[in-house]
Amino acid sequence: MVALAPVEKWKWGSRRWNLKSYRKELWFNVPARRAFINITPQVETCLRESGIKEGLLLCNAMHITASVFINDDESGLHEDYERWLERLAPHDPVSQYLHSRTGEDNGDAHLKRQVMGREVVVAVTGGKLDFGPWERIFYGEFDGGRRKRVLVKVIGE
Amino acid sequence: MVALAPVEKWKWGSRRWNLKSYRKELWFNVPARRAFINITPQVETCLRESGIKEGLLLCNAMHITASVFINDDESGLHEDYERWLERLAPHDPVSQYLHSRTGEDNGDAHLKRQVMGREVVVAVTGGKLDFGPWERIFYGEFDGGRRKRVLVKVIGE
Amino acid sequence: MVALAPVEKWKWGSRRWNLKSYRKELWFNVPARRAFINITPQVETCLRESGIKEGLLLCNAMHITASVFINDDESGLHEDYERWLERLAPHDPVSQYLHSRTGEDNGDAHLKRQVMGREVVVAVTGGKLDFGPWERIFYGEFDGGRRKRVLVKVIGE
Repeated sequence: MVALAPVEKWKWGSRRWNLKSYRKELWFNVPARRAFINITPQVETCLRESGIKEGLLLCNAMHITASVFINDDESGLHEDYERWLERLAPHDPVSQYLHSRTGEDNGDAHLKRQVMGREVVVAVTGGKLDFGPWERIFYGEFDGGRRKRVLVKVIGE
Repeated sequence: MVALAPVEKWKWGSRRWNLKSYRKELWFNVPARRAFINITPQVETCLRESGIKEGLLLCNAMHITASVFINDDESGLHEDYERWLERLAPHDPVSQYLHSRTGEDNGDAHLKRQVMGREVVVAVTGGKLDFGPWERIFYGEFDGGRRKRVLVKVIGE
Repeated sequence: MVALAPVEKWKWGSRRWNLKSYRKELWFNVPARRAFINITPQVETCLRESGIKEGLLLCNAMHITASVFINDDESGLHEDYERWLERLAPHDPVSQYLHSRTGEDNGDAHLKRQVMGREVVVAVTGGKLDFGPWERIFYGEFDGGRRKRVLVKVIGE
């Protein structure tokens, strides 16, 4: 059923090197409750600042009602995500969530974040994000209206 | 629509250093079929033992019917997760899952685990888990009643 | 309610070492629209080629309508995933997705990929994938019929 193409391309570094690390917080204040923001340019700036050429880059939401994920920068798709997540985990009525007993009204945001994920780990190769043609990094806000953070951490050479 | 706050805080280490690695298994025996357990203290103990100050920490379920994820330590929310996952992928009737033909009754657990995720990767900065204010690590058990493991691996300096 | 077993096993390397990196692309051409392919042998070959004994391995889809995930190599379960994902995010009618306005018919694939995930990060210990007994790595294709890639990146010693 499946034709598995032969492995075609590879490269590796046998050269021994020393480790560097880099850390930065990206801050957001999204006025709307929900939004998807392309943060690829900011993450690329971080990578340039780090000077790291080979390694791994972690990018994660530091809040538990937000996501960092990789997908397509296409507004129709983002609206599809919005509708789909609202169907899987509706915001209203907030009384459906036991979490609302804490006084919060963001039970749905904690669920949506699990579907979209907390973090991405991206390979760093030749000083660039090692991406396929359409991969872009997004901040997914599910409970906006306040300042929230994303962490970028890079380790490598 | 979106006000993107300027990048405000960063630090990085240009100092060259050498790599260390650390590995530990955390074992669990959850009597119930399903439960969420805060394992942050155990993971912090691992990080202290490792002596690693800068790097990445991987924490993953070693079983395919369990999750490791990061969210809020709030019992109402955990009950919301339980209800929501049971709605997305109900346990009963087990006959709805072809996986049941193997004699297992945990088809739902394999699905729930995909929603909640297998692993988290956490930045290590200054010898600590580099967390936002409410981030905690949880073991999500979806097919308990037996001994199961979580892996903690840390690399860095 | 929960009996937490004591931490039992651990080992760590205090020895100081230098970093190596490795990169390879695995190419696929899946004739069907959707399929799950066990790529554990190819990833193990990458790890052997890298010569890396301790570190982290990242394996990610380079396309945004495909997944890399870890679960069980059981055909009934894979059929359960197929049915479940089709229920959560049906392919037809494609007109239900605003993404279809771009001329694409793969809106569902972008949603399914978020449930199953983009990537896995696996610990490398003693030159092996540090896996529990049933963990296997899968390529999840949700929009096949063309050549697509998976990235394997390893860093460590």
